[in-house]
Amino acid sequence: MGLEISVGSRIRKSPFFEKTVEEGVTHFSIYNRTYMATSYGDPIGEYRRLVDGVSMWDVTCERQVALKGPDAENLTRYLTSRNLGGLNIGQGRYVPLVDYRGTIINDPVLLPISSDEYWLSIADSDILLWASAIAGERGMDVEVYDPYVSPLAVQGPKAVDVVAPLVGDWVRELKYFAFRETEVEGIPLVVAKSGWSKQGGYELYLRDQTKGHQLWDLVKEAGQPHGIGPGCPNYIERLESGLLSYGADTDAQTNPYEVGLGKYVDLDREDEFVGKQALKKIHAEGIKRQFVGFLISGESIASSSQHRWPILMDGSQIGFASAAAWSPRINSNIGVGLIETAHSEAGIKVTVCADAGALDATVVKLPFEIPE
Amino acid sequence: MGLEISVGSRIRKSPFFEKTVEEGVTHFSIYNRTYMATSYGDPIGEYRRLVDGVSMWDVTCERQVALKGPDAENLTRYLTSRNLGGLNIGQGRYVPLVDYRGTIINDPVLLPISSDEYWLSIADSDILLWASAIAGERGMDVEVYDPYVSPLAVQGPKAVDVVAPLVGDWVRELKYFAFRETEVEGIPLVVAKSGWSKQGGYELYLRDQTKGHQLWDLVKEAGQPHGIGPGCPNYIERLESGLLSYGADTDAQTNPYEVGLGKYVDLDREDEFVGKQALKKIHAEGIKRQFVGFLISGESIASSSQHRWPILMDGSQIGFASAAAWSPRINSNIGVGLIETAHSEAGIKVTVCADAGALDATVVKLPFEIPE
Repeated sequence: MGLEISVGSRIRKSPFFEKTVEEGVTHFSIYNRTYMATSYGDPIGEYRRLVDGVSMWDVTCERQVALKGPDAENLTRYLTSRNLGGLNIGQGRYVPLVDYRGTIINDPVLLPISSDEYWLSIADSDILLWASAIAGERGMDVEVYDPYVSPLAVQGPKAVDVVAPLVGDWVRELKYFAFRETEVEGIPLVVAKSGWSKQGGYELYLRDQTKGHQLWDLVKEAGQPHGIGPGCPNYIERLESGLLSYGADTDAQTNPYEVGLGKYVDLDREDEFVGKQALKKIHAEGIKRQFVGFLISGESIASSSQHRWPILMDGSQIGFASAAAWSPRINSNIGVGLIETAHSEAGIKVTVCADAGALDATVVKLPFEIPE
Repeated sequence: MGLEISVGSRIRKSPFFEKTVEEGVTHFSIYNRTYMATSYGDPIGEYRRLVDGVSMWDVTCERQVALKGPDAENLTRYLTSRNLGGLNIGQGRYVPLVDYRGTIINDPVLLPISSDEYWLSIADSDILLWASAIAGERGMDVEVYDPYVSPLAVQGPKAVDVVAPLVGDWVRELKYFAFRETEVEGIPLVVAKSGWSKQGGYELYLRDQTKGHQLWDLVKEAGQPHGIGPGCPNYIERLESGLLSYGADTDAQTNPYEVGLGKYVDLDREDEFVGKQALKKIHAEGIKRQFVGFLISGESIASSSQHRWPILMDGSQIGFASAAAWSPRINSNIGVGLIETAHSEAGIKVTVCADAGALDATVVKLPFEIPE
């Protein structure tokens, strides 16, 4: 349709914004009230670069919510259903958050920066307000704020060969979600082994917002020998890998058990946490929906679906596909979505009501199997 | 730059979305995780239609947060610093919300639907999460949810002549912010005398999301004799009228006194409300910034500024202009912004650092005076 995005002061611009424009970004969305580059106009090229080489993404929209003060650890533990056990400074964790009804409201990565400072690296919902309200009502001695940190993701099998020369060989030994504070040419960074793909890589959390252009250029230069190029959170790869996209795959009723996050809920914890009673009830009753994949028949469908597609079985709706695309590696259209548990077993045949018409599809477990 | 917006299932589409595309919408933004039409490509024409005639706007992005149950009224009163006194069903109120630091987090209109149901018609921040957290922590017996209601604004001096024939002559007698539930050709609506302009008009809150196209067509048809056409929350008119744009004009430190909302803070209330202690302190200390207007010299500047422009006095920064545009009625560039109280008196000369260079400007009180 060629609809343009308006750029104004209500929405945050990334410190890499002008660099992404220079690189030829064509599409944006808005995520956490921040402009998010979503395409450079070459979906298959960007995908190939990510799965075969190395790609750099502006993910400033992945905002940090800092919890700082004597009660920061208490608040952190109270906010998530996950049992955090012994928290290690420098070791991140994936910590889905639910509300008092047991509904998922975000799925951040927790970064324990120090014993009294924790960051939640969030998906698209306002956890700053959520955590502030809870801290305020509980009278906790903790400051909740946005520390103005902007992640630049370097993703793909060759990412390590770009980041190690720049930051140091110690990054080769980092465990998944581990991170360290460091400086590169005077640019203060938190370097984490993480990112929203299964291709491996790092996120460089920029702590000085005036140095975005400098960091972008450094990474680009370090990546030249490896064919680095710009990218975005990748629509196709995340489908193949079965990565959850909060807000796209989830709706206002989605609980952790439905989307494979039950392992991050510890109902046996002795301490209280938000949603504990509701999750106990949901767990006891069993879930009615399940997040699954679909192998979808037919020619290559449009690179992305603009809305949820109904999933039918014997003419009745049993759920929706939240995203679908052509997978070059699987050589088929694929999708993900929530469908009724009773019909969610691998191999079950369903119908996807795509924009172009009804398509036959088969339910599969996530992540998809990628042929060698 | 011609940057396109990507359309996907993570962001809500309005029930009027396809109609706005049919009408030739050219630009979108995202507001409350909902696509918001921002331009039909004719800024001056859209402005003229609003100030001289009648315009119809899709403001589905103005989401409703419903508070329903025995504690709905208690929660409503606790959430806002305003003294709501006797709440009348059917009479809306403007109710700025602050956090525990006294910082503005939204400025909704409150609609008392019934004695146990209140809607907050919100600006761009997640008050659903905020109110849910507070209700959850206080153990209140109240449900907080999105009732899926989509406002269609009809704005401009001729709006009444479009809406009255459609809905009934009773709308002519409605007080500002008053509303009534009704049906038009089987479409369930809440009709309110409100809207984000000072040109007068109504908001038709659509309660059945399957009937967006039908409602759009009815309003368009009723408006034909009056030259109705599509519009958007209007960038120029809102500047002239000094209407606050939460998130654009406010930042992470803005309190109500700075932006002229002190009259909605009642520090003498005997009951508790969020931010009471902080607002008492802020009030006692006096404010350091003030929201003002600027008359800006020079040729017509671009129709909108893409980011905040620094405001200088004697070479030092004293604040920022959050928005600026050419005003056809004032025949000058105008802007709004927050500057230091010490330099905020009308008549003071400042410098605006616009994209095109430094421009002389004069501070004025809001709203701007519009010549006859």
